[in-house]
Amino acid sequence: MNDPIKIGIAGLGTIGSGVIKNLLRNKKELEDKYHFRFQISGISAFNKNKVRSFDVNQFTWFDNPIDLAKDTSIDLVIELIGGESGTAYDLAIEAIKNKKGLITANKALISSHGKELSELSSSNNSFIGYEAAVAGGIPVIKTLRGGLILDKINGIYGILNGTSNFILSRMSEADKSFEEALLEAQNLGYAEADPSFDINGLDAAHKLSIINSLCFSEFPSLEGISVQGIENILTLDHKYANEFGYNIKLIGSSSNIEGSLRKEVSPTLVKINSSLGSVSNVSNVVCINTEYSGTLVLEGEGAGEGPTSSSVLSDVVDFALDIKHHLFNKKHNKLTAPVSNKNFIERCYYLRVFLADQKGAMSNLTSILGKNGISIDQVIQRGGIHLKDEKNFTPVIMLTHPIDSESIDSAFSELINTDLISMDPIFLPVLKDNL
Amino acid sequence: MNDPIKIGIAGLGTIGSGVIKNLLRNKKELEDKYHFRFQISGISAFNKNKVRSFDVNQFTWFDNPIDLAKDTSIDLVIELIGGESGTAYDLAIEAIKNKKGLITANKALISSHGKELSELSSSNNSFIGYEAAVAGGIPVIKTLRGGLILDKINGIYGILNGTSNFILSRMSEADKSFEEALLEAQNLGYAEADPSFDINGLDAAHKLSIINSLCFSEFPSLEGISVQGIENILTLDHKYANEFGYNIKLIGSSSNIEGSLRKEVSPTLVKINSSLGSVSNVSNVVCINTEYSGTLVLEGEGAGEGPTSSSVLSDVVDFALDIKHHLFNKKHNKLTAPVSNKNFIERCYYLRVFLADQKGAMSNLTSILGKNGISIDQVIQRGGIHLKDEKNFTPVIMLTHPIDSESIDSAFSELINTDLISMDPIFLPVLKDNL
Repeated sequence: MNDPIKIGIAGLGTIGSGVIKNLLRNKKELEDKYHFRFQISGISAFNKNKVRSFDVNQFTWFDNPIDLAKDTSIDLVIELIGGESGTAYDLAIEAIKNKKGLITANKALISSHGKELSELSSSNNSFIGYEAAVAGGIPVIKTLRGGLILDKINGIYGILNGTSNFILSRMSEADKSFEEALLEAQNLGYAEADPSFDINGLDAAHKLSIINSLCFSEFPSLEGISVQGIENILTLDHKYANEFGYNIKLIGSSSNIEGSLRKEVSPTLVKINSSLGSVSNVSNVVCINTEYSGTLVLEGEGAGEGPTSSSVLSDVVDFALDIKHHLFNKKHNKLTAPVSNKNFIERCYYLRVFLADQKGAMSNLTSILGKNGISIDQVIQRGGIHLKDEKNFTPVIMLTHPIDSESIDSAFSELINTDLISMDPIFLPVLKDNL
Repeated sequence: MNDPIKIGIAGLGTIGSGVIKNLLRNKKELEDKYHFRFQISGISAFNKNKVRSFDVNQFTWFDNPIDLAKDTSIDLVIELIGGESGTAYDLAIEAIKNKKGLITANKALISSHGKELSELSSSNNSFIGYEAAVAGGIPVIKTLRGGLILDKINGIYGILNGTSNFILSRMSEADKSFEEALLEAQNLGYAEADPSFDINGLDAAHKLSIINSLCFSEFPSLEGISVQGIENILTLDHKYANEFGYNIKLIGSSSNIEGSLRKEVSPTLVKINSSLGSVSNVSNVVCINTEYSGTLVLEGEGAGEGPTSSSVLSDVVDFALDIKHHLFNKKHNKLTAPVSNKNFIERCYYLRVFLADQKGAMSNLTSILGKNGISIDQVIQRGGIHLKDEKNFTPVIMLTHPIDSESIDSAFSELINTDLISMDPIFLPVLKDNL
């Protein structure tokens, strides 16, 4: 057996503490199965004196995490601080420059600095593991860095944010309002005090941009991903979607349609019994639609101490086995700028408006839609349902025939400038494939 | 870039031809992404003159596949002949002894000779890839050889045979009889002319035994796996199961319950909307229930040229990257004999009998069940339903309360010795977890 791998860990919150416990618990397994030993040579966090689930005094404490990357005795730096810039970024760069292995769970870092990181890692021939950055305990990064990447990928569709999926599930299954479901998520520790990125779709978009890089050989970027959050979804939208046979899920998707990539994060109608439609609570799921191997579906826990620290450990194993992949499958100089979003592909939409209780309103509404090329497949309007503050408006729900997004945008702009409706209308895409 | 990897391929049926096409199609990708070149240095099959989807004359032909393993210029042998012994076995052993890498899609070989293969591969420090042997295009072997294996696995549950899943799906969804569904599977090329192993559960058992080795550090073996096929399932069983909220699927499962392993392949009632219950056609699915990472679900195409050849290619990449794992995660001398099946764990069962239309029959039936400790949770008996050849017998369907399998076996023996019923009764376990 070789010398032990010397590990430095920065960030000792839930995940960091979990990684330390998981490493110690698996000491013997790692020796037995993979023939390596390790030693935790340094730890660092903002506050040494915080109460933690392990005894910090058994390890060497570094006041400044950057020093872990500078310490000549350390081989592998595990960054679990988080945040797209600041200390996490400085630590990552320093670790690579000093030819150390780097493992991170930081999707914002990988997404925002992917170009620089891939360049640096190519020139330093360094190991960067980030399995934990996307979809917690689901080995989606390894699957996309391994053999599957030889297959042509037609599209990738996923529930990439557990918090928003929990909220949507509770609205749909327990009849909660958005605010009640969010509060419940916060009480259970699923949502941060500031849950903006979970709710506005940006967390899912960060993850999608990383997946895009692996699948489509481009630098990760939020540019070109159209992002819509879940904040405007009402409990009644779930009910009506259910009536049509769908659930509403926050889906991150990149579809390669006739050579053009459409990339988006949006609340989306997916068939109730499909792989995407049947995933509840904080679970994540990723469907990879390939040219030759059909569709592969990976589903599991999207976050939390256990799943995420297991993913970090799987990267430690890869480091020990000296498994080196390019950061995004191809060498830095073979990656391209992100391809921009093409929205000309037609698909069906779910439309919900609160329509004025006045004569001719429905006729005016359908006329605006018709003028924009939108034709209606199904409509539900029932008497006696009103919003609390809008007594004179009734919900009208429609499923459209396939239409491009430009027409939808144009109808949206026209609608919000009339007196026909209260509140902005919502248009949600309907996923065609039964994924 | 290093010297090209010299590959020999034995067996040129659907999968073998697919591997060759897939390799040639990915030549540039393999160079770009993984920095290796390859060359197909030899091919072999039983009949050189068979019509194939590629031109055999562009490669060196070996009349005897074993010579591929002896040829000093070949680095990697891909065995796609099939069969647990004979040429496939000889070729595998010869390849390992000659320190060549070995890739195989042969579950019967790995399952039946796992002990010898793990010993030989340990002493020769050789590469053996068998991703394609279990669940076609789903990377279940890599997932279980990678980081996940550090987690404690509580149980693994899967639909491991696409043909039988197709048959069960067609019976359930299209109201076909077993014979009609089998014929359809054969016409579509999903089932062999002799589909025995697909139908009697042995193919699934082979795969389960390999998974067991990876999860529970034992030599693979069919011993201790209780196996029941799908040949006795009737179309009406699907209907009644549906009424109770379940689908009937052929499930291979190993559950680690209180330190005892229960291993079985059996038609099983699974919740209609669960991951296992919602998988139709020839798809496979594997649910891995772990102590720390929750449940991971992998679903995809279980067979066919595309998925299987993609899995073979992913092994070629591992060989090129020099990723070496022990055959079954641990060194040969740390594997144990297979733990035997424990059936004392109680669970619910689905029971179907054809009960004689005679006074007191139901009372006699429930009395036999009661005597064996079996108590009934739900019963369905409807008038007017009879088997074609058994006009005087009516189907009676029951869901039992939890009970051990010994009691079930005892009730079965008693029932078949009475005049109360025609045909053997069927007892199917009900999966408790909502997987």
